[in-house]
Amino acid sequence: MSTSSPAAKRQKSSKDEPYHLIYWSGLPGRGEHIRLALEEAGAEYTDTAHIEGGVKEVLALIDPENTGDDDINVPLCAPPMLKHGDLLISQTPNILLYLGPRLGLIPSPEEDVDGIYRVNALALTALDGLSNEVHDCHHPIATNLYYEDQKEESLRRSKDWVANRLPKFLGYFERVLKSKASGDGPWLYHGQLTYADLVLFHCLDGTKWQFPKAMKKMQDSGKYDGVFKLYEAVKERPKIKAYLASDRRQKFGMGIYRNYAELDVTE
Amino acid sequence: MSTSSPAAKRQKSSKDEPYHLIYWSGLPGRGEHIRLALEEAGAEYTDTAHIEGGVKEVLALIDPENTGDDDINVPLCAPPMLKHGDLLISQTPNILLYLGPRLGLIPSPEEDVDGIYRVNALALTALDGLSNEVHDCHHPIATNLYYEDQKEESLRRSKDWVANRLPKFLGYFERVLKSKASGDGPWLYHGQLTYADLVLFHCLDGTKWQFPKAMKKMQDSGKYDGVFKLYEAVKERPKIKAYLASDRRQKFGMGIYRNYAELDVTE
Repeated sequence: MSTSSPAAKRQKSSKDEPYHLIYWSGLPGRGEHIRLALEEAGAEYTDTAHIEGGVKEVLALIDPENTGDDDINVPLCAPPMLKHGDLLISQTPNILLYLGPRLGLIPSPEEDVDGIYRVNALALTALDGLSNEVHDCHHPIATNLYYEDQKEESLRRSKDWVANRLPKFLGYFERVLKSKASGDGPWLYHGQLTYADLVLFHCLDGTKWQFPKAMKKMQDSGKYDGVFKLYEAVKERPKIKAYLASDRRQKFGMGIYRNYAELDVTE
Repeated sequence: MSTSSPAAKRQKSSKDEPYHLIYWSGLPGRGEHIRLALEEAGAEYTDTAHIEGGVKEVLALIDPENTGDDDINVPLCAPPMLKHGDLLISQTPNILLYLGPRLGLIPSPEEDVDGIYRVNALALTALDGLSNEVHDCHHPIATNLYYEDQKEESLRRSKDWVANRLPKFLGYFERVLKSKASGDGPWLYHGQLTYADLVLFHCLDGTKWQFPKAMKKMQDSGKYDGVFKLYEAVKERPKIKAYLASDRRQKFGMGIYRNYAELDVTE
């Protein structure tokens, strides 16, 4: 195959098919960002986390021998992955970028042609600062090693992170919420719920699980009231509320966010 | 402001204006991914790295007191940032997403409507694995601390990274290059140069600078020939070649990628 044309012609119109999320089971993980978007929109979807033997699908796709099944989709490196018709893609912010306009979780592209880039940047910043960096607080040396093999380093990193990075990122989102561009109401962008709000919600939820004392201190400081108001506002969305109370919602455990008492520092 | 409509109406048609890159000077940094895309496309752009006092523009935009100048663009957290007409956005992969179709660095959206999501995922994976993770090899504990304050931890992390993560990510991109979906020729996606190739090039370039011995070992193994061929193919693109030889190209130093002899491990 030499150009994208023939492949494009073979792509099915897949708008009517349900979405299929491919992710580990037993933990919210990065897949949770995708679930929250699908749940908020009331979209029809399947989820390997709730399918018997679903893990096999994850493992097959990221297998070092897998060079893909077709001439359209490149092989994938890691979950979450989304299948929709003939499309198979990975990377949390990328899947959200694909779903955003389809689920009505970005401003209308007709009215705000560049809105997607502003929403995407907000989501990327939340994932960098309040997901990847928080994960590395319990795995600063290597993801391959057990936490027990990097406990001292984890404590050192957690102390610095809570003192310097946590207020930096909460302060950034508070600054966004104070901006004219955030519009009225609790949301980050132009007065409208977008997937960036859902991403920030889950990032805050996970950070509260990992660093309950530090997050309480931040909340009590009164400096980030907009951020914590957004957290509550997402939690109270009827569909999100129903989802969080359902069996589909998996509990935090030994994933991206981990609650180790010894790392629950406040300075 | 309550909806995005009025803002959208106020957005200027900005296609004819040159791009303005806002980034630190003195190092390639994350801004280099943007520069390479602009240079490959022969686009007209300005760059604060080469403007007297340009750093003031960076600092003003990320100032903790800055809540934005208009009701369209939300405040930004960190460079690189791109200004294009009324648009002001941040986040490396997001800026590339915006530039990709404008610079002809993704497949034609008419022919391959979902191509942008596959290219974006490739770029995100390269940035995760071969930029962010490499940076953390010399700053595993805290970006706020000096390297000298985390030397031991850096060595421990670098050893694990070179042994486990480097082959993982090179192996992933080799797998992509072996896939039918990569098409003919040296590129990652559908036989066509995209910005994902440029991102991978710079990630490899930086990793070679930080870990020259390990990268030589990887190259000599013969397991990742496609990856190293892509590296050379980007380097030989006429406009990239001219750029790399120009004054606009800044040298690696104490940035994302750092060359500490004691971290230059092979296992």
